[in-house]
Order: sequence, then structure tokens, then C-alpha cells
Amino acid sequence: MATAKTLNDLFLDTLKDIYYAEKQILRALPKMARAAQSEDGKEGFLKHRDETQGQIERLEQVFEIIGKPARGKTCEAIQGIIAEANEIIEEFDGSIALDAGLISSAQAVEHYEIARYGTLIAWAKQLGHKQAVTLLQQNLAEEEATDKKLTELALSAANAKGTKAA
Amino acid sequence: MATAKTLNDLFLDTLKDIYYAEKQILRALPKMARAAQSEDGKEGFLKHRDETQGQIERLEQVFEIIGKPARGKTCEAIQGIIAEANEIIEEFDGSIALDAGLISSAQAVEHYEIARYGTLIAWAKQLGHKQAVTLLQQNLAEEEATDKKLTELALSAANAKGTKAA
Repeated sequence: MATAKTLNDLFLDTLKDIYYAEKQILRALPKMARAAQSEDGKEGFLKHRDETQGQIERLEQVFEIIGKPARGKTCEAIQGIIAEANEIIEEFDGSIALDAGLISSAQAVEHYEIARYGTLIAWAKQLGHKQAVTLLQQNLAEEEATDKKLTELALSAANAKGTKAA
Repeated sequence: MATAKTLNDLFLDTLKDIYYAEKQILRALPKMARAAQSEDGKEGFLKHRDETQGQIERLEQVFEIIGKPARGKTCEAIQGIIAEANEIIEEFDGSIALDAGLISSAQAVEHYEIARYGTLIAWAKQLGHKQAVTLLQQNLAEEEATDKKLTELALSAANAKGTKAA
């Protein structure tokens, strides 16, 4: 059965999905900051929390552009990714590998967002929502920069602990 | 309470996570291929299914290198991502936007894998598992190539449908 659903519906669904996801991430980051052992880790997670707040506001502007109320839709993907982060916090509590695990979880979060923003930007272009493209590109650029910083953090933490292979 | 868990444990946990994820993806891809409307989409998903089989075999070699039985560990992240793909298959059945949605889901899958392999490669290097690094890098390169192909597929499908913005 053909449905009348179009790319507009898919764009709105996916916008709701990432809006919900960003809000969940906003709540998860302070917990990750508390759990982190290194000062750099703590600071990094808190800084990204502030960035996430700004990203949520940009998404609210995108909802406005397309004339829809800003509303989230349960995103099982981010729920799963955050559940795995919480598992690491519990299982690696006090372990020298805890920060490596937290960084790894944060990178899984970033990559989910990178995938979603990449898709939303392509669709916003197709649908002619130029202002939305700009806003979504700003969010994508921040996520990509965060992912890069996390990689650097992982390497510097590993070097500091002397766990790097000879 | 400090635990005795080390980076070795974290590496093994994450290896089990991606092993489970790849097996779930192997099962999900034929369903996505059946659902896809375009021949290119169908072919792409089936080709990636075969690639996934090879990736699972490489992961089994990594388990062998570290002297552990190849065993998966429930990965809630991939369960969530696949659940969202199934939702799109149901909600956009017969819609002109179905393939765009399927491609988007597949890119979320790829990015999850890209994040995990990036992490595993860094840890395998730290732990001195050189052969494992090579195997994991092969998987990562395939996932990155697939993500790129999916982006091209999304653009060509959009052009074919004339939904591209003027």
C-alpha cells in the first residue's frame, strides 16, 4: 500500500529523533563528567554539555523554519548508546580504563549525531530549507570537532598512563 | 572502589559488542534489501551483507589473537538503531521517501561501526596487538567506503526523483 508520506515527513521524523537525542545527551553529560577521572575529561564533557544546549536551540529554530512545534520522538538508538555508557561507568568504576571507556562511549554518541546531521543537511538542501541547512551545518561542525577532540583526549590519556605499546 | 579491570577487559568487552552488532546487521540487511525500492539500493544492501560476513570472520580472528572465545555481548546501541530502521520500513512502506529513510538508517549503522572500530584500533595499538590492528583497520576501511557509497546512493536517488531543490 502506497502511503502519502514524503521527504517532508521523513525530515520532520528525523529532526524529532535528533532533538530527543540531544536532550538525552544533555542529561547524560554531567554524569559522564562526574565519573571521569581526569580533569581534561571532566572539562571536556562539561564544555560539550554547554555546546549541546546551543545545538538544541538551533534545532528549535529549524522546527520554527518548517512551521512545526519543537517536539522530540523517542530515539531508541541514543537510548541504547547511553545505556552502554552507563554500563561502562558501573563496570569500570575505579578502573584505570574508565576514562578510555567514557571517551569511547562519547565517540559513539558523536558518530550517531554526525550520521543524523549529515542526512538532515542533505534532505534540507533537497527540500530547499536554506536557513535550516546553515543551522544543521553548525551543529555538524561542532560534533565533528568534538569527535576529533575526543580522539586527542584518548591518545593523551593513554600516553599519560604509559599504556601505549612500545 | 577500585576494580582490577584494565584496558584488556575494555578491549574484550568492546570486541564482543561489535561482534554482536555485526551479527545483528547481517540479519537486518536482507530485510532492508527486500524493502528497498531501487535496484541500486537492493544491490548495495546485499553486497554489504556479504562484506559483513567477511568482517565477522576477521573479528573471529581477533578473538583468536587475544586467546578468547568469539562471543557476542548484547549491544543495545545496535538494537536501537535497527529498531529505528524497522520503524521506517513500516511507516514509509510504499512512500517515495522509503529509500531515503533506509539509506539514512544504514548510515547510522555505519557510523556506529566506524566509532567502534576507531576505538578498537587505538586500543589494539596500545595493547601491542599488531595483527589485530590490521584486521580491524580492514573492517574500518570497508565501513567508511560503505558510508561514502550510501551518500552517493542518496544523492543519485534524490536526483532521479527530481526532489532536489532548484
